[in-house]
Amino acid sequence: MSARATTRPGGRSARVQQSVHQAVRDLEAEVGRDALTVPLIAARAGVTPSTVYRRWGDLRELLSDVAVERLRPDGPPADHGSLRADLEAWAVQFAEEMASTVGRTYIRDALLGDPEQGNAVRCSDYAAEQLKAIGVRAAGRGEGVPDVETLMDVLVAPLMYRILFRPSDLSEAYTDWLVASALGRGAAPSAAKS
Amino acid sequence: MSARATTRPGGRSARVQQSVHQAVRDLEAEVGRDALTVPLIAARAGVTPSTVYRRWGDLRELLSDVAVERLRPDGPPADHGSLRADLEAWAVQFAEEMASTVGRTYIRDALLGDPEQGNAVRCSDYAAEQLKAIGVRAAGRGEGVPDVETLMDVLVAPLMYRILFRPSDLSEAYTDWLVASALGRGAAPSAAKS
Repeated sequence: MSARATTRPGGRSARVQQSVHQAVRDLEAEVGRDALTVPLIAARAGVTPSTVYRRWGDLRELLSDVAVERLRPDGPPADHGSLRADLEAWAVQFAEEMASTVGRTYIRDALLGDPEQGNAVRCSDYAAEQLKAIGVRAAGRGEGVPDVETLMDVLVAPLMYRILFRPSDLSEAYTDWLVASALGRGAAPSAAKS
Repeated sequence: MSARATTRPGGRSARVQQSVHQAVRDLEAEVGRDALTVPLIAARAGVTPSTVYRRWGDLRELLSDVAVERLRPDGPPADHGSLRADLEAWAVQFAEEMASTVGRTYIRDALLGDPEQGNAVRCSDYAAEQLKAIGVRAAGRGEGVPDVETLMDVLVAPLMYRILFRPSDLSEAYTDWLVASALGRGAAPSAAKS
């Protein structure tokens, strides 16, 4: 995300962001992605095109900003009673969401409209925050917890890499195995390049 | 890569590909990336713009195709006498090349101009082929070898994930640790998000 898109909640800037994002989502559903233009979006949002250009730079950067908002988790990860169960459930859901057609589109949008990588970092931080929350909960139960950067390497990175570069069967057996690896045990099944 | 860009070596099609790729590389150096257009590239390559459009679709797909060619390894990975030494040396070089400004640009180009993911898969296959070659050599020495998909998960995925999503210090200590993890031993240092 460019510095232009920073907002204070509740201010005019936040209202503009909200209405422009909403316009993108609505128009994407109505006319399709390929028909989106800045003037069309601005008209629907009730702002001038120059407001959009000034704030987001161009259509690609705007789509990247919208994508990152959509990739933001809705709430804290579900509590299944143990670190392993929480990580397994989180990994299944993460893999499903990110590997879906919509998820892939958002990931690409987030990466590609973002020459300074701020949006990609936000996506990565969303995952890290969820894993941190799972870890804090596990530590509260007295469980030993791998550090977050290790979880990013062992659990998140292979899923995102396979989604972007290496079409694979991201089955529950595979995500369970990643979790087992992250927890320091488990022998590898073949990692399922499809 | 789209099916349009398939070539037989030595034929007219291969010559067109070579001259268009060369024109992209030369013009990128001379006028800069942002000034590249299909008509400019076609004129330099001595072909018509419609030849370029017919074969590559648009500028972005052409840049994606050029990027993948540049990411193709020059030859087999160097032989350092053991699986561990070969993997460590390969990982250092891979991290350096991919994390460089030029490498990042190629990765983004490869991903971006590639709605069908063919170019991303080619990039991933280049890495897999290099790791396979290292494994075959190691097996010839009588060493036990992790399977290639495990190496992709444990070694390649974290490097690519951090380059794209999570700016990190991809130090030799870090790549050595990834190799140690892939070989089934080694305690994790903190994975160095910078």
